[in-house]
Amino acid sequence: MSQRKVGVILSGCGASDGSEIHEAVLTLLEISRAGAEPVIAAPDAPQRDVIDHRARAPLGETRNVLVESARIARGKIRDIRELRAAEIDALVLPGGYGAAKNLSDFAIAGAECAVHPEVERLLLEMHAAKKPIGAICIAPVILARVFGRAGTRIRVTIGDDAETAAKIIAMGAAHEQRRVDETLVDSEHRIVTTPAYMLGPTIADVSRGIAKLVQDLLGMIR
Amino acid sequence: MSQRKVGVILSGCGASDGSEIHEAVLTLLEISRAGAEPVIAAPDAPQRDVIDHRARAPLGETRNVLVESARIARGKIRDIRELRAAEIDALVLPGGYGAAKNLSDFAIAGAECAVHPEVERLLLEMHAAKKPIGAICIAPVILARVFGRAGTRIRVTIGDDAETAAKIIAMGAAHEQRRVDETLVDSEHRIVTTPAYMLGPTIADVSRGIAKLVQDLLGMIR
Repeated sequence: MSQRKVGVILSGCGASDGSEIHEAVLTLLEISRAGAEPVIAAPDAPQRDVIDHRARAPLGETRNVLVESARIARGKIRDIRELRAAEIDALVLPGGYGAAKNLSDFAIAGAECAVHPEVERLLLEMHAAKKPIGAICIAPVILARVFGRAGTRIRVTIGDDAETAAKIIAMGAAHEQRRVDETLVDSEHRIVTTPAYMLGPTIADVSRGIAKLVQDLLGMIR
Repeated sequence: MSQRKVGVILSGCGASDGSEIHEAVLTLLEISRAGAEPVIAAPDAPQRDVIDHRARAPLGETRNVLVESARIARGKIRDIRELRAAEIDALVLPGGYGAAKNLSDFAIAGAECAVHPEVERLLLEMHAAKKPIGAICIAPVILARVFGRAGTRIRVTIGDDAETAAKIIAMGAAHEQRRVDETLVDSEHRIVTTPAYMLGPTIADVSRGIAKLVQDLLGMIR
């Protein structure tokens, strides 16, 4: 079997305005440990905002999602517009507010959110090709919106946050509680989710759920 | 025994102008896995430069080392000026060009480099207190400079790069080659180093050396 390729969609570089860095790096670590190759992509678009992660307040700056995501990717990253499901065997969306601000506007619009069109296109391509999709932390809301609108009722977890779970249900998905070291596997739709920093609290805790998610995902590749 | 505390000095957020993100996150992961607590600090100072990691070219921007490092720390970070050796049991410096641009000017001045005064102060405090120090990737050049000037001949590795090794020797330290999954332990001076992305190539490779470094370091705590 040739080397399996796992797409990873990033949304910037930092928990408050982009990809949650630990979740993204742990995802890359587990893909690499399994002998698979990560194929990293992000939208070439401005970030919704730029947050000072120490002061927890906005900085008066403009940054680009693709350029900042390249920090986590060590430069090896593609514009998501160029990435097709045919090139990869599985796809993972790490969390961080970037998933709810840059890949979608869930942080602002909630259950009425719009998803970045190229993210939506790639998710629907993956599902049509029966290839597995993983989503971490808050990123499952993107899957709930895309597949809910497509009339496909998927099952996901974001841990135990009742408010977010209610929005997931409003978007047409089912929500089930999971612990930080667990995944929820929707075998019918080949979707795996884990709460990560929706629960935390430590990076060691988060690493266990993400390791399981990547293993579950690789096990679903046909 | 109370929970061990391990200082981690960051230098920004990105391999080309700050901390190497994977190395920093893997360091935090191993500290957390061992049940220890990371105490993250960085200098409150402007970065030397801001690099577009995708285009591999400078961006015309100014960013602050402490503010950008806070992305990796998820906001829980201190100004290095406030951190004393008495508060921590061990100290780690992850790599990335930030170590050679922001924590020192090794990238520009080579063996004649200056080290950030608060970094130098903390390293000398740790050594005087007989507490172990770890350095990853290019960061061992900082130890070579600080301890070389202090007249303490330490042993470090940065992998097998002959040019950097020659500069380390010129600064008064000894250099020994190591593989990416190995550490060099200088038991006399309680200093542990590992090549990480000086060799790579994959994050899985790098993770093995960093896991060993953190274990070696924790084993040296009295």
